[in-house]
Amino acid sequence: MDTLEAIHGRRSVRRYQDKPVPEELVRKLLAAGMSAPSARDAQEWQFVVIDDKAMLTEIGEINPNAKMAQHAPMAILVCADLSLEKSVGYWVVDCAATVENILLAAHALGLGAVWTGVYPRQERMDGLKKLVGLPEKVMAHSLIVVGYPAEQPSPQDRYRSDRVHRNHW
Amino acid sequence: MDTLEAIHGRRSVRRYQDKPVPEELVRKLLAAGMSAPSARDAQEWQFVVIDDKAMLTEIGEINPNAKMAQHAPMAILVCADLSLEKSVGYWVVDCAATVENILLAAHALGLGAVWTGVYPRQERMDGLKKLVGLPEKVMAHSLIVVGYPAEQPSPQDRYRSDRVHRNHW
Repeated sequence: MDTLEAIHGRRSVRRYQDKPVPEELVRKLLAAGMSAPSARDAQEWQFVVIDDKAMLTEIGEINPNAKMAQHAPMAILVCADLSLEKSVGYWVVDCAATVENILLAAHALGLGAVWTGVYPRQERMDGLKKLVGLPEKVMAHSLIVVGYPAEQPSPQDRYRSDRVHRNHW
Repeated sequence: MDTLEAIHGRRSVRRYQDKPVPEELVRKLLAAGMSAPSARDAQEWQFVVIDDKAMLTEIGEINPNAKMAQHAPMAILVCADLSLEKSVGYWVVDCAATVENILLAAHALGLGAVWTGVYPRQERMDGLKKLVGLPEKVMAHSLIVVGYPAEQPSPQDRYRSDRVHRNHW
């Protein structure tokens, strides 16, 4: 799929077919995530692929906005490993770029995905850390729920010229 | 350009041809940025396109890592407008997704770009806020320097299987 088409056509998909995501595609999603830029190229990310049904259900108890996970074949927990960080504090933006790459790759590969927010909500970070057993220095950043789409939200034109300024506000 | 090709081929470009970026492409970059997902679809971003030569030079004084801006035709300051925020604190990740969309669009359109970090460095946020005259509730998040590339960094395979975990760490 064309890059600009993927960028503009990507929408949050919250309903999925009852069908697993092949390992080959999971690897492509993760590879896309790992191609993101990061401060001083630290690549301080870690990923937990969750496909255990009980765990996918428990996710919705940790974050009510992620209840769709119980009906999804999988989710990817994007984490920041602070032991790999080179520039303090940039893990928040670096991991967000990773998430966006995964969302675009999912759309381009015919999958549907939704970004459920974790950071900066401490209770969600703590809950997911405990769920998958993250080490102390690894932070849960975002949870992406993925599957073959059972809904096809239409692209939206979000361009707003009033948000664009030239040299001065 | 194919989406996965753009994701894997995108690299930081810090040297540019002495040639302006057409307005039509600037609009495509901004539209790509505005197509990013955001918490509760708040779309709390604002953009300042900087093509004033004196300002591009001054950017390098605010952030020494952005000195290449003085030799670039333009830069985009991605900002968060806290008056538009719906979920407190998510502007940091939302604007990072916006930046990644712009970087991918730039690469797909034959441009070169580099993400220079602003947030969470307070002195850079303050310096850029003053430079372009941002209102109090608008935060400088990231600065993207853009131009036609005068260097072509090779794609890198960053996939690392040791960063992938399954259900449990």
